[in-house]
Amino acid sequence: MTTRATERRLIGIIRRASTRGPGVRVGIGDDCAVLELGAGRLLLATTDLLVEDVHFRRRYATAADLGWKALAVNLSDIASMGGRPRWALVALACPEGVTVEEAEAFYAGMLELAGAHDVAVVGGDTSASPRGWIVNVTLLGEAAPASVLRSTATPGDVVAVTGALGRAAAGLAVLERGTAPAGVAPAAVEEVKAAHLRPRPRVREGQWLAAAGGVTAMIDLSDGLATDLGHISEESRVGSRIDLGRLPVDAIARLVADALGADPLAWATGGGEDYELLVTCTPGAFARLADGLAAATGTRLTAIGEIAPAGEGVRYRDAAGREVAVAPGFEHFVTGRA
Amino acid sequence: MTTRATERRLIGIIRRASTRGPGVRVGIGDDCAVLELGAGRLLLATTDLLVEDVHFRRRYATAADLGWKALAVNLSDIASMGGRPRWALVALACPEGVTVEEAEAFYAGMLELAGAHDVAVVGGDTSASPRGWIVNVTLLGEAAPASVLRSTATPGDVVAVTGALGRAAAGLAVLERGTAPAGVAPAAVEEVKAAHLRPRPRVREGQWLAAAGGVTAMIDLSDGLATDLGHISEESRVGSRIDLGRLPVDAIARLVADALGADPLAWATGGGEDYELLVTCTPGAFARLADGLAAATGTRLTAIGEIAPAGEGVRYRDAAGREVAVAPGFEHFVTGRA
Repeated sequence: MTTRATERRLIGIIRRASTRGPGVRVGIGDDCAVLELGAGRLLLATTDLLVEDVHFRRRYATAADLGWKALAVNLSDIASMGGRPRWALVALACPEGVTVEEAEAFYAGMLELAGAHDVAVVGGDTSASPRGWIVNVTLLGEAAPASVLRSTATPGDVVAVTGALGRAAAGLAVLERGTAPAGVAPAAVEEVKAAHLRPRPRVREGQWLAAAGGVTAMIDLSDGLATDLGHISEESRVGSRIDLGRLPVDAIARLVADALGADPLAWATGGGEDYELLVTCTPGAFARLADGLAAATGTRLTAIGEIAPAGEGVRYRDAAGREVAVAPGFEHFVTGRA
Repeated sequence: MTTRATERRLIGIIRRASTRGPGVRVGIGDDCAVLELGAGRLLLATTDLLVEDVHFRRRYATAADLGWKALAVNLSDIASMGGRPRWALVALACPEGVTVEEAEAFYAGMLELAGAHDVAVVGGDTSASPRGWIVNVTLLGEAAPASVLRSTATPGDVVAVTGALGRAAAGLAVLERGTAPAGVAPAAVEEVKAAHLRPRPRVREGQWLAAAGGVTAMIDLSDGLATDLGHISEESRVGSRIDLGRLPVDAIARLVADALGADPLAWATGGGEDYELLVTCTPGAFARLADGLAAATGTRLTAIGEIAPAGEGVRYRDAAGREVAVAPGFEHFVTGRA
């Protein structure tokens, strides 16, 4: 038997879910959390709003998946500055009919990931929603001694990316389709589905890269390579040249794309939600960074191009060296009129 | 001519709206804000989610009202700890058809209040919404040398409240009705409507009270006296005795209630959203606090009862001294089943 979640019950669930940790003077249960930052540390703050049927579908994302992902996307923002995530504030609005079991699963999914990163849930809000689940997470953290920004890439820098691309888009394609693609091993299909539903933000990698020296700019790949590289280019007032042949397109994503008749390169450049780190570094530092990152975290770093002067814009070449157009990722709003 | 708000345009509006201020090392435009807290200060953090047709109606709340109120409710949380508000992160999801003008008005309304409290908007997120406006604001601040909590009231303390009660509920009643009540001056009607649409959080009052000494617990009246006094009682593990005859029921609220055949006392105890401060203090401190607060801020402090031992529960007496039941405020979720 399931039980409807009243607001009082939801608050009770949050309070049981809230974790106390270092630096938490007052957690959930008062008007504000009271937190103690490390002495001399700068504070990092980021917020992300996830709305049902815009950012996720309950048809295939469980409440636990949603809790995990709502925190993951924020962890990824802290990762891209090289920071240390510490405290989360979680606002949740549920439609009528949501059960206590679902609400508990939401927080359990979030706490599973929070625990892995020593993040304490210290505040929150709950509400009814007239339609669909709405989740907002604000994540606070401590900055690295020198935060790595988007705005500090310079011409000549190497452009590199952690891990593999296109996994989340492949997972999303399978989930939207509803049936597994023929000829791809079930375990492989589960892996890309998990990449979409439960992304693993590169927090350790971001910290290592920020501390290693030689990294000039960093951003996480939430909207897709084309869009996020555009952010670095715009904020740093530079251009860039990317060799599509060098992109570390995920092997399973290629298999799934073949099976579905999709283009894995389009998933890798425009799919978004891989939550890998897009990094620029001085040319002399790249080999050291790639070797060191692999040794420290097991994650590879792949060079995919270079930063160019602003006048060149952002350019992509295919494996044959021809310049090609690459579409940016998803735009949430309808196209505006001038 | 109006122009539809694309996500890119909304981000542009946020970036123009974002204010840089003391302690803002990196504002909107990177993955995280980078913020510098005062040396040795504790951090306050609070978050509130406002959902259309749960917390507000666009029928009578303009986009500018909504921007103001989304920040105001968070300012009130910082006020109730006696803290200093500093930085806001603002997530906004708009339904299709929202114009650039409306989005700009939203941020303008928020910035009007932010400016009055030296709050900088340092981060945000934007999204589409499949239905209605959704706003989440997280507000960060600096704690007073000793934060005033909900959990530290003790039996014998005086219970007191700032300002007047029932104004926001009177305003809401007029707004929901759609026409002004007969026999109430138009300016008075506008005043209670503004109390609902553009509440003025008691930030200076909270800071003054926290610094004055003698205040034992504090909470802001967001859900109504009955509910919020319940929070203090629960968190402090105490009971309380309230004399309804001593409640500072707002004079205009009484006029509006008379005109509409409503009960002004029910508005004052259960209406919520007055964003006054509910304060407990040592008996010997009350007169000094009331005089000092009036002198420092122009806001009166009215004693309405006392804290009792836990075993007594929360009790209300009417003007004739009879014990009466008082209904708590609004519950967002449908009633749960056991």
